Amino acid sequence: MASIDPVRTADPEALALTKRLLSEARFATLATLDDKAHPFASLVSFALDRATRPILLVSRLSGHTKHLLADPRCSLLVGEPGKGDPLAHPRITVQCRAEAIPKEADESVILKTLFLARHPKAALYADFPDFLFFRLQMLDASLNGGFGKAFHLTEADLAFRP
Amino acid sequence: MASIDPVRTADPEALALTKRLLSEARFATLATLDDKAHPFASLVSFALDRATRPILLVSRLSGHTKHLLADPRCSLLVGEPGKGDPLAHPRITVQCRAEAIPKEADESVILKTLFLARHPKAALYADFPDFLFFRLQMLDASLNGGFGKAFHLTEADLAFRP
Repeated sequence: MASIDPVRTADPEALALTKRLLSEARFATLATLDDKAHPFASLVSFALDRATRPILLVSRLSGHTKHLLADPRCSLLVGEPGKGDPLAHPRITVQCRAEAIPKEADESVILKTLFLARHPKAALYADFPDFLFFRLQMLDASLNGGFGKAFHLTEADLAFRP
Repeated sequence: MASIDPVRTADPEALALTKRLLSEARFATLATLDDKAHPFASLVSFALDRATRPILLVSRLSGHTKHLLADPRCSLLVGEPGKGDPLAHPRITVQCRAEAIPKEADESVILKTLFLARHPKAALYADFPDFLFFRLQMLDASLNGGFGKAFHLTEADLAFRP
């Protein structure tokens, strides 16, 4: 068995695809660490801030929120499959560190505006006291652009301009 | 803020929904632990064995395979969204322990038959030397059946009869 690493470093096309995947999706799968440090996968809605960083709005009653408050390490799988084989559609796994933004923070007002622009129905619960925002700092990513198109993106690659 | 736990123990309806979600989906999100014990989310195809346990067929060249060989703890998010808000569709997070089934094992022949019945195109790569099967032992699960319908399932709940 050949052991050639099939993963390439990011090129402009890979960066453009990354920005497109993040910008087009409204939902993603989040992986967190549960109270036994066991991985835990859940569905989340998300929006982006002006620097293309994912923003979550989640309830403290949810498992994933408890996990992120205890350990900020998480992973976001982004890429909404179209027709046909989902494994043939581009998708990206972004390794992140979640930063809680309390409701009292001035920034929370900006995040609420951005989040509701992307998810208008979230206005129903955005002000509930158990909900809070997390901003995901993107540390590195694995982009799968289809067969034979695997790329690794660094934190610098993922630092999109506002 | 009330701190009532909104999660219920499984009832027959919850068990039936769990079996339906596992049986209907062909793809899921897998959460593994990467080489830094950071959670990592990726897309996988899966089938079920006769005891309704998820079966993966993955390449040793993939990140998630390397992760599972190093640490078998993983989580599978199952539930394919239909039209409308994905958060309104039922889905389940199953906490699992992955068991590698080597190609030489007699059981691998049975798993291949089951997997190809669900994913006929996997015949193209099932015999590649870098591919192997994992059977996911289900340890517990969080079922989200829609608003106000959250259930916790134990390992005993998830021990479906063959």
